[in-house]
Amino acid sequence: SKPCLDSIGTTIFTVMSALAAEHKAVNLGQGFPDFACDPALVDAVTQAMQAGHNQYPPMVGVPVLRQAICHKIVALHQRQYNADTEITITAGATQGIITAILAIVRAGDEVIVLEPCYDSYVPNIELAGGVAVRVPLTPGTFRPDFAKIAAAMTPRTRAIIINSPHNPSATVWSDADMQALQNMLAPTDVLLISDEVYEHMVFDGQQHQSAARFDGLAARAFIVSSFGKTYHVTGWKIGYVAAPAFLMAEFRKVHQFNVFTVNTPVQYGLAQYMANPAPYLELPAFYQRKRDLFRTGLAKTRLKLLPSEGSYFQCVDISEVSDLGEADFCQWLTREIGVAAIPLSAFYGNGFDQRVVRFCFAKQDQTLQSALQRLQKL
Amino acid sequence: SKPCLDSIGTTIFTVMSALAAEHKAVNLGQGFPDFACDPALVDAVTQAMQAGHNQYPPMVGVPVLRQAICHKIVALHQRQYNADTEITITAGATQGIITAILAIVRAGDEVIVLEPCYDSYVPNIELAGGVAVRVPLTPGTFRPDFAKIAAAMTPRTRAIIINSPHNPSATVWSDADMQALQNMLAPTDVLLISDEVYEHMVFDGQQHQSAARFDGLAARAFIVSSFGKTYHVTGWKIGYVAAPAFLMAEFRKVHQFNVFTVNTPVQYGLAQYMANPAPYLELPAFYQRKRDLFRTGLAKTRLKLLPSEGSYFQCVDISEVSDLGEADFCQWLTREIGVAAIPLSAFYGNGFDQRVVRFCFAKQDQTLQSALQRLQKL
Ligand SMILES: CSCCC(=O)C(=O)O
Ligand SMILES: CSCCC(=O)C(=O)O
Repeated sequence: SKPCLDSIGTTIFTVMSALAAEHKAVNLGQGFPDFACDPALVDAVTQAMQAGHNQYPPMVGVPVLRQAICHKIVALHQRQYNADTEITITAGATQGIITAILAIVRAGDEVIVLEPCYDSYVPNIELAGGVAVRVPLTPGTFRPDFAKIAAAMTPRTRAIIINSPHNPSATVWSDADMQALQNMLAPTDVLLISDEVYEHMVFDGQQHQSAARFDGLAARAFIVSSFGKTYHVTGWKIGYVAAPAFLMAEFRKVHQFNVFTVNTPVQYGLAQYMANPAPYLELPAFYQRKRDLFRTGLAKTRLKLLPSEGSYFQCVDISEVSDLGEADFCQWLTREIGVAAIPLSAFYGNGFDQRVVRFCFAKQDQTLQSALQRLQKL
Repeated sequence: SKPCLDSIGTTIFTVMSALAAEHKAVNLGQGFPDFACDPALVDAVTQAMQAGHNQYPPMVGVPVLRQAICHKIVALHQRQYNADTEITITAGATQGIITAILAIVRAGDEVIVLEPCYDSYVPNIELAGGVAVRVPLTPGTFRPDFAKIAAAMTPRTRAIIINSPHNPSATVWSDADMQALQNMLAPTDVLLISDEVYEHMVFDGQQHQSAARFDGLAARAFIVSSFGKTYHVTGWKIGYVAAPAFLMAEFRKVHQFNVFTVNTPVQYGLAQYMANPAPYLELPAFYQRKRDLFRTGLAKTRLKLLPSEGSYFQCVDISEVSDLGEADFCQWLTREIGVAAIPLSAFYGNGFDQRVVRFCFAKQDQTLQSALQRLQKL
């Protein structure tokens, strides 16, 4: 039988989590919490199952959850989405992103991605028959370089994908960054996919600059978010996409024939739980404390700390610690030191190696402490 | 902004369920049970959540669930799949089918579908850049016509999609049908997608002829099934795909970048629940009784009964009852008689109207009785 998808390997997150398990390493690789979610959220889902909410929900998601999302977006970003026509519940953010791409990208269309970027974007674009145009973020700072982005735009540019707070670099786009993007896109009909799965993890008093806050961006944007990240339930695989009705109509045409819809009791449970904004309002302080704990420990090693403005990631420069390339270093660190990390090269198409690796600090304090203890050996 | 997916409308199931709700009609349209699942299954999922199984499972699904599926397939069909390399848990059967298609269909590849067929197949093929080649099942009997299928095969044929028990016609492929397919495919490298979501609903003592029972088919097949249909939880959106390792490797390349993985606590809950085979072994008798109750009532109307050998559907010929086309009849039936049904034309690319509509009898007896009462008016 003829070969199929030769260029696609296994996602780095699966590879490193398997290696971590094999070597009983502290897994700071794949991004997920190792602590429990709020038991009240489990209870809310249980109640929904017991109340009999176990059959197909509406294709686009249950109305109460879509309404709760609209309330949240208005409260945080002062934009009113229409719950009926502009919000769709997805089986996680990844499914939201591929569905948006399949909805808008036709053969030969170009989509700009800013490298380093999440490893699903480019395969998603290529599955849709599109061409990924890779523009690097500024080396060292991981800031957007708008001159470079503008230079990459062509008449075939269909969309650009952005991600703030940024995985893997933990940078956060400023108001000025978003304005610059808005100005750049204004004369074009280029669409925007804004991956905002870490929206509630922005530190040091900064504001998450959602695309929803900018008229010129919101009018052309699929905004993608994740309940798994926000509520410490990455295994529940549920997120949402917000987009203006003309785009959401296209999105839903693909969604209905991809997953059709998403787990009903989880939707009802989340809708009830979201009525209280405290859990996501408290998230920045919750994760900032973990970040600081982790950074304080890392500062005692020869790993060089990069900034962590948002997300639940911390990047470090390994050049003073090792001569290995990033990928080999992560393998070595997992096997020999007992801590798993992710090489940034996994987020580049050409495997660009800048001697930087990513740790996830969404972990119990004792997990972070045990990782730090092992890392002291460096 | 340029139009995107002009040819795709909203799935008929969403349209008819919305119309049924609007008119307070008895909804025998979209296929889902209106009764509760086993409370033990809800408890099993609750326990998994409470035990903290709320973070990412392995990309391919949790091992215990994949092993339980292998045990089931061996017990029922005497084929041993490898749980590690040949089974992947999906966010419902629909996601399993689109993922298989995206994994194997490249631009210009042809995929044979047998009409009438489920409404996601053709859009899935087209999203992958492929060409759907529609071959009709024999009019009247809905039996496969192997001469017609053979005539549709070309050097570009990449795959064929079959579905038994069949939605919407409620026919079931015999051992001879499967043998004929096997013989036809033997000299080719055409792949098979076997949609077996109604596998446990085969009546009158017949045996479900899974592709897993035929060496020559299993070796080239993605077999797709649905926990939602089997366990009365269509809203949980979970199913699985079984395929030989060389095909499953390609499948997983797409899967990881589509949904990545599937709800963890539901996977653990199902794994525990599946240890007891009784629920699916009792399913044929359970649904056969409902089918017979429904058919007995329909026999008193001027709707002409077609056979229902499997699935949870019953088709009827409307030609003695109405001069309307199928689609108009279903609208009228919903509005005026208060019973929703699905026109078979929705399962054909050209809207072929043979005066047949589909009812779903996966309903409480009282729901079926109340529908029958309304249908007596015909
Ligand atoms: C889908 S597994 C990867 C989780 C994640 O977002 C990350 O580690 O970057
Ligand atoms: C995914 S909604 C449709 C349910 C179903 O399988 C049917 O009614 O045919």
